[in-house]
Amino acid sequence: MAHLLSTTCSLNASTSSRAYSKPLNQSSATFPASFTLKTSKFAIKWLTLQEKRPQRVCTVHAATLSQEAQSDVKSGTHQISGDSSNPKKVIVIGGDGYCGWATALHLSNKNYEVAIVDNLVRRLFDHQLGLDSLTPISSIHNRIRRWKSLTGKDIGLYIGDICDFEFLSETLKSFEPDAVVHFGEQRSAPYSMIDRSRAVFTQQNNVIGTLNVLFAIKEFGDECHLVKLGTMGEYGTPNIDIEEGYITITHNGRTDTLPYPKQASSFYHLSKVHDSHNIAFTCKAWGIRATDLNQGVVYGVRTDETEMHEELTNRFDYDGVFGTALNRFCVQAAVGHPLTVYGKGGQTRGFLDIRDTVQCVELAIANPAKPGEFRVFNQFTEQFSVNELAALVTKAGKKLGIDVQTKSVPNPRVEAEEHYYNAKHTKLVELGLQPHLLSDSLLDSLLNFAIKYKDRVDTKQIMPSVSWKKIGIKPKTVAA
Amino acid sequence: MAHLLSTTCSLNASTSSRAYSKPLNQSSATFPASFTLKTSKFAIKWLTLQEKRPQRVCTVHAATLSQEAQSDVKSGTHQISGDSSNPKKVIVIGGDGYCGWATALHLSNKNYEVAIVDNLVRRLFDHQLGLDSLTPISSIHNRIRRWKSLTGKDIGLYIGDICDFEFLSETLKSFEPDAVVHFGEQRSAPYSMIDRSRAVFTQQNNVIGTLNVLFAIKEFGDECHLVKLGTMGEYGTPNIDIEEGYITITHNGRTDTLPYPKQASSFYHLSKVHDSHNIAFTCKAWGIRATDLNQGVVYGVRTDETEMHEELTNRFDYDGVFGTALNRFCVQAAVGHPLTVYGKGGQTRGFLDIRDTVQCVELAIANPAKPGEFRVFNQFTEQFSVNELAALVTKAGKKLGIDVQTKSVPNPRVEAEEHYYNAKHTKLVELGLQPHLLSDSLLDSLLNFAIKYKDRVDTKQIMPSVSWKKIGIKPKTVAA
Repeated sequence: MAHLLSTTCSLNASTSSRAYSKPLNQSSATFPASFTLKTSKFAIKWLTLQEKRPQRVCTVHAATLSQEAQSDVKSGTHQISGDSSNPKKVIVIGGDGYCGWATALHLSNKNYEVAIVDNLVRRLFDHQLGLDSLTPISSIHNRIRRWKSLTGKDIGLYIGDICDFEFLSETLKSFEPDAVVHFGEQRSAPYSMIDRSRAVFTQQNNVIGTLNVLFAIKEFGDECHLVKLGTMGEYGTPNIDIEEGYITITHNGRTDTLPYPKQASSFYHLSKVHDSHNIAFTCKAWGIRATDLNQGVVYGVRTDETEMHEELTNRFDYDGVFGTALNRFCVQAAVGHPLTVYGKGGQTRGFLDIRDTVQCVELAIANPAKPGEFRVFNQFTEQFSVNELAALVTKAGKKLGIDVQTKSVPNPRVEAEEHYYNAKHTKLVELGLQPHLLSDSLLDSLLNFAIKYKDRVDTKQIMPSVSWKKIGIKPKTVAA
Repeated sequence: MAHLLSTTCSLNASTSSRAYSKPLNQSSATFPASFTLKTSKFAIKWLTLQEKRPQRVCTVHAATLSQEAQSDVKSGTHQISGDSSNPKKVIVIGGDGYCGWATALHLSNKNYEVAIVDNLVRRLFDHQLGLDSLTPISSIHNRIRRWKSLTGKDIGLYIGDICDFEFLSETLKSFEPDAVVHFGEQRSAPYSMIDRSRAVFTQQNNVIGTLNVLFAIKEFGDECHLVKLGTMGEYGTPNIDIEEGYITITHNGRTDTLPYPKQASSFYHLSKVHDSHNIAFTCKAWGIRATDLNQGVVYGVRTDETEMHEELTNRFDYDGVFGTALNRFCVQAAVGHPLTVYGKGGQTRGFLDIRDTVQCVELAIANPAKPGEFRVFNQFTEQFSVNELAALVTKAGKKLGIDVQTKSVPNPRVEAEEHYYNAKHTKLVELGLQPHLLSDSLLDSLLNFAIKYKDRVDTKQIMPSVSWKKIGIKPKTVAA
């Protein structure tokens, strides 16, 4: 199952990229009109040609719309929300990505004061790999303007690379967040297994970006709570129950509670393991307060906020690199492509609706870790094997009159295809998580959605194109 | 205890440094006459000004000396040795460093065909931090020429950076090693805690360098055995016995053998944890054969080979950044400086004589891991607390008529100062390790040695200058 383990969202580019900033009086609905792309070493640099020293920070102030437009605002149903008289300030790194965008809107809707930090490199990867979201997505600038017009709420926008410490530190000094939600990493396991340079990029980008976030918090906001997106894939598939971050071990008559052993299975998942170790150390050494959300596989696309207007629509990846299992199955069903089960299909993982992703992040922020605490939550709601998912999609297809086929394809990954899997996930429920279950959302939020956009499906993107064993040292490019 | 955990040797610089090569007809006993130093981002670049595209590979062919000189050759006493009729070819990455140099000579003496890969950046760090080895050390070029003149044996020399994949892959293709011994990392915990840029450099350099080694082995030598230097510091100080790499856990009625949980306590130690996870994954996914040597704190300086001639003398670090605990205590005793115990002094670690380091590496090479096997050995011979070490040095000093004082200084590290510690170390003994014990070598190999060179001691280097809690984002420089 190719993308089961690609769980977190959006990303931030390399060490040496410079901040891109677009003056507000220019058209902002498109990519910069001209930019230079340089991919030597791990660096992706882009600079506007017009500006030698771009202004680093670009906060979009959209014009306020009429009262009618503002009355469109819908409020969520969760119990927790920011206190509007003294809103908490939250930075969402990677806020233009799949989980990040939904989270930024949700927090803004709940009266948190939100700023998005993103270098938009996830959009560049689509260009480079010839991929596209199933849903048409607006520029981040237009997204934020539309949100303002609908709700009257500002979302700050800092476009730049967290691997550029000068950019990151200026951002933190300027915004003074109470919490930083960090989705800003290369988040695809297959992307990290394309070739050596993508493997190196993934680890360099993710590990150094997170180190920079830790240093920035230490220096400019030592009360700030880091909410970091990890992945359930850090644990692998051990033959014992998976606990939430720690396990109490009795060994030769002595007992200790230790970090749960990690067995990640791609350079991407490994980068998250490295992050977890680095964060745990800084909590201990510097008193950083951090929550590591080991997220399962996210499905769905609609949230209360993104469905307010088509310009707020979230991205929906179904391709062999960024698409996650269930989303891809629904697209396959919609276009009459057999569901592609990798290998035996016994691979079992934790899953959650994107509406629960945003709820979990809000719960973590509203109930912060203590100073020095490294808290780990397993963030998913249900477990399924790939074969179970295929059966559920087949059954849902029948209700819509679609004849869904399934075929097994050679597994491009190196992973156990039949294994024990039982992962705990009680801590977020204890904080108040009210899960959306797959059985309730499969038809309306997923399959019907895929059918709505099926004319945009590029079937060439569906099959796995990245092999865990065949990854080589030569850069892979995509022919026209 | 400042340097207890700084265990492995020598290092390799950043992603973007270029190979430095010195034509053989130039003087080679000194550093390049002119070079440009650039430290923006994590890059340290140096280029000879004379040469735009330096030749990447520099193999030194020293002139053969007379028969008399060759008769100086001493042979070691260990049981295992390469088969001289078909010598195993071994690359020692970081072969100009403390453990690396001793290992390269030892393997050459045992009839392995040896090549050293090093970018010599460890020597640059001494310049930048105003530090120096207690012992005067020759250039790598002269070291290798002297070895050839004494023994008739060639040691290949590839000067360049393993983070430069082109350099590394050309080296592997050219030498075709049966084993790669990888000491080539930034190996000091305090160095990694100097400032943000050194923290980032350490993780970037170590993690990406090792990733490159894994890719190079996959591509150019899939039978090649990776012998990687890890550190006992990866385990931290858990309240249960430390096993060798893996632990069998029974939990809720089920049992599995999993990677031993890691709790590293500096950005350097964390980089080794990251390496271990990355290597384990490639063993599983690609069938790489690897041995991770989790080394304790190394002491001593003499080996059978380095004592053949003063030009072969190894480096001996006693400073607050690169000096390890026991070596520093001996220098302190020699110059009448109180032994500096950090905090309560109950910190306990595993220790070994450098003569056992070289023996262990040889044992690992002679008994390689199987394809796909990720084997972990704990490489140390005895455990001591800092207070026990201080007492041993005090007692040994008395025999030499030296009145040794001890003083407690504030602990610059974040670590438990009183804790349980019991680490297994049987696997290398089972392979034939015959330990040199501290009680036998303290006087002759350590204290007398420090006394011999005491006129070279710079007492300003002795005290700890790096704080785990005070590390900041501004680059730290050393004033004249």
